Amino acid sequence: MMNQMVGEQSVEFENAPRIISSASVVGPKEGEGPLGGAFDLVCDEAEFGEDTWEKAESTMQKEALQTAIGKVHLKSCQIRYLFGGDLLAQLIATSFGNGDTEIPLFGLYGACSTCGESLMLSAMTVAGGYADYAAAITSSHFGSAEKEFRFPLGYGNQRPLSATWTVTGSGAFLLSARGGHVRVRGATPGKIVDMGVRDNMNMGACMAPAAQDTICQNLKDFHFRPEDYDKIITGDLGEIGRHILLDLMAEKGYDISEQHMDCGLEIYDKEKQDTHAGGSGCGCSAVVLAAMILPQIEAGIWKRVLFVPTGALLSKVSFNEGQTVPGIAHAVILEHV
Amino acid sequence: MMNQMVGEQSVEFENAPRIISSASVVGPKEGEGPLGGAFDLVCDEAEFGEDTWEKAESTMQKEALQTAIGKVHLKSCQIRYLFGGDLLAQLIATSFGNGDTEIPLFGLYGACSTCGESLMLSAMTVAGGYADYAAAITSSHFGSAEKEFRFPLGYGNQRPLSATWTVTGSGAFLLSARGGHVRVRGATPGKIVDMGVRDNMNMGACMAPAAQDTICQNLKDFHFRPEDYDKIITGDLGEIGRHILLDLMAEKGYDISEQHMDCGLEIYDKEKQDTHAGGSGCGCSAVVLAAMILPQIEAGIWKRVLFVPTGALLSKVSFNEGQTVPGIAHAVILEHV
Repeated sequence: MMNQMVGEQSVEFENAPRIISSASVVGPKEGEGPLGGAFDLVCDEAEFGEDTWEKAESTMQKEALQTAIGKVHLKSCQIRYLFGGDLLAQLIATSFGNGDTEIPLFGLYGACSTCGESLMLSAMTVAGGYADYAAAITSSHFGSAEKEFRFPLGYGNQRPLSATWTVTGSGAFLLSARGGHVRVRGATPGKIVDMGVRDNMNMGACMAPAAQDTICQNLKDFHFRPEDYDKIITGDLGEIGRHILLDLMAEKGYDISEQHMDCGLEIYDKEKQDTHAGGSGCGCSAVVLAAMILPQIEAGIWKRVLFVPTGALLSKVSFNEGQTVPGIAHAVILEHV
Repeated sequence: MMNQMVGEQSVEFENAPRIISSASVVGPKEGEGPLGGAFDLVCDEAEFGEDTWEKAESTMQKEALQTAIGKVHLKSCQIRYLFGGDLLAQLIATSFGNGDTEIPLFGLYGACSTCGESLMLSAMTVAGGYADYAAAITSSHFGSAEKEFRFPLGYGNQRPLSATWTVTGSGAFLLSARGGHVRVRGATPGKIVDMGVRDNMNMGACMAPAAQDTICQNLKDFHFRPEDYDKIITGDLGEIGRHILLDLMAEKGYDISEQHMDCGLEIYDKEKQDTHAGGSGCGCSAVVLAAMILPQIEAGIWKRVLFVPTGALLSKVSFNEGQTVPGIAHAVILEHV
């Protein structure tokens, strides 16, 4: 049996699998943002032709997966396994979005870290010889997420400046042993980190300690310094979470202010779009990876990137019962080849 | 790269990982059932000392995992990855149950099929050389599940005879390359199968077509006949689901009436416990695997078993929006060594 373990908590692939295709599908608000021109599909209405937010989210997943498959001229039946998830209870966006494809499904939940979880497991599946092609998909929708976690949209509650805006979008990725110009060198699956934060309108503060934990572990396990990465890109910490992360990293002796980026801070225009602390959701890191990060790596502008989607583990039940909001972050090392 | 694929949809491990330890924790009703004496821990109150059903479920997970780890004299820090899930929105039983262990977590959701999903991924992780020890854990709780999917318990709604009773229980499993007398030979991850059933009080009917699909695919991929298995054990189809499964299998030319068992039909006493169609939930197949199936395989009474946890993919949102209840089933081949 080969050994693909490195350090305490990470995997490093003997034959690094490739991300051979990706696709991004977003709603109108995301289309108006700074990355608008880079998405594969921008729908001009957030309902995507459906009568519920949940069905709209399923439709985005369908479109994203079919687009990613179509780009490399494959067929659904060639994708051996699908690793997918979303933010909704019992993953209904994923189960109703992917039934027609008839691809065996591993349902995943890691809150907004699920994009990292799905990429890691797809990579482990391809590198373990369990599949020629595996797919990873995640999504979120502003309408379905507000309903799921906070208040009905019609209630019109006021959002504090620490709140982030859930991205309406879905990103899909195909992995295989060969092809393309991006390889997954390894990954650091994250632990649950609970610093006792209880504010569901300040997800950045809930997730930053988990991001710090996973990034430090990754640097330790691979014997890297921050400057060995061109970029260290978190999922959706937003403005406040970013500051907390930089402070926590400094406490551990790492200065990552040069390398750090956050998908939640890239997707909207802070001045014009009134999204407060930034973007968030399973779809946020996924569509920014597909539309911005992968193209930079493919072009060789960035040689090595640590992609770290971050998740806040709460439900409306746990929140209403007074529980904390623990965080989790999963890191994936992406390299240009 | 080694090839561990078999047939259209399955994996077969070159070095089959072992299930080296397991543990089961249940509530009082399960303790009074026919398997009562075989569980590791029976709590005499369903609250497990906590003040909410959700915390009670988290406590069961904690106890189950620690018991499984303790049985083989390991420590939490030796378990490299944990694959866990439950039925609650955003997997709160799992996230609040396993934070203290500090084991990196892959959160999974496959409804009541999650026990199969977690075992498959743990086995793939060990056999791929990504971990020396991996753990799989799932749970369900009657109180938290009724609240999550149907009505508050205090409402006292009448349950039709097709309804199943969600098992209060958690099962944990440790996998490694060596040790013990049960090996995971391979697995068949399942597809979403939607026959248009919309009745959330008849989960057996929702899941039986998925069980049929996965079992047939498993037989085809491994070139097995039903009699090559000592037992084919579904998760929680219950009385009605079992009959539908046997009929659907017969239509495909397979008679599995000799080999078939269902965990939901083993856990309660039909005559005395008033559980209608049987037991269900993520915890059902998990605790029956730990308390009944693994001991039979360890003793060599059963040489080869197909373990097929079945899941009904719905949420209260999708149900209230008039959606169907699709099913999914994940199959794992367990053999005596």
